[in-house]
Amino acid sequence: MNLKEKILEIPNFPKKGILFRDFSPILKDPSALSFIADEFEKYFHPKDVDLFAGIEARGFLLACVLASRYNKGMVMVRKAGKLPGKTTKLSYKIEYGQDTIEMQKDIIDKGQKIIICDDLLATGGTAKASAKLIEKVGGKVTGFAFIIELTELNGIKGISQYNCKSLVRY
Amino acid sequence: MNLKEKILEIPNFPKKGILFRDFSPILKDPSALSFIADEFEKYFHPKDVDLFAGIEARGFLLACVLASRYNKGMVMVRKAGKLPGKTTKLSYKIEYGQDTIEMQKDIIDKGQKIIICDDLLATGGTAKASAKLIEKVGGKVTGFAFIIELTELNGIKGISQYNCKSLVRY
Repeated sequence: MNLKEKILEIPNFPKKGILFRDFSPILKDPSALSFIADEFEKYFHPKDVDLFAGIEARGFLLACVLASRYNKGMVMVRKAGKLPGKTTKLSYKIEYGQDTIEMQKDIIDKGQKIIICDDLLATGGTAKASAKLIEKVGGKVTGFAFIIELTELNGIKGISQYNCKSLVRY
Repeated sequence: MNLKEKILEIPNFPKKGILFRDFSPILKDPSALSFIADEFEKYFHPKDVDLFAGIEARGFLLACVLASRYNKGMVMVRKAGKLPGKTTKLSYKIEYGQDTIEMQKDIIDKGQKIIICDDLLATGGTAKASAKLIEKVGGKVTGFAFIIELTELNGIKGISQYNCKSLVRY
């Protein structure tokens, strides 16, 4: 299946000058959803993952699709302020200023193997921060799964010590 | 399986006086995830659904779990400003002021059968608005799937014309 045919290009979103790659047509197509699960299944062995972590909000989608396929669980990496109970936060630099992500403190058992999921790898800032946060709460990051990778932004550089897989590259 | 044992009660979140019901322990437990899919599968027949719609953000999770189980697609109902391309918006009253939800204009083919998913039914304002929005973009709402229902808030009243299923009631 040629996934590129199912990814829309939307200019100037979320802001002027950005070409947004939209994977909504994959989500609504059962054969495409099944295909992406097949592709990741070829790459990541079930013994290398206990939980799929989804980065808010589109990363939740891939994490749940893979959790269902692998018969594993799913955890959320959220923007600050959205998770109840005791949490752990991590702040990281973005283009202008900083951003903060958060996880529930006790959601991961020590040493559980985690594959981090997002729809798209761009500069990799949030991906790298997510790995740090997961390690901070006791998880072992065993990989990254992305549907789309924007290679010219070289986000892979910051997470190259991990086993990374993207299905579509631009 | 007793799902109530896997739902945490967190007082004063997101604000003072609210007892938050947190289903994170279900998400991270593969047998619980599989159990909720089993339960909905008993209730909704595959011929009554083409797409599962997830309400941002926790509704995305259930929608993707059910899309995977039923081998169907998934679409997003998002807060305003987060979806690229041509969209349709709908505003609705909340306790103080109003809120706006948004979908991509052409994401649903005319007459496609949609089951709307969210983690929790409270007052039902967002649920009801989501049904209206889906009908506005051409879908036919065939049901609602909630993990948790807070019965004393009677949110079911606003969506009683639809086929609604919740797994845990308080």
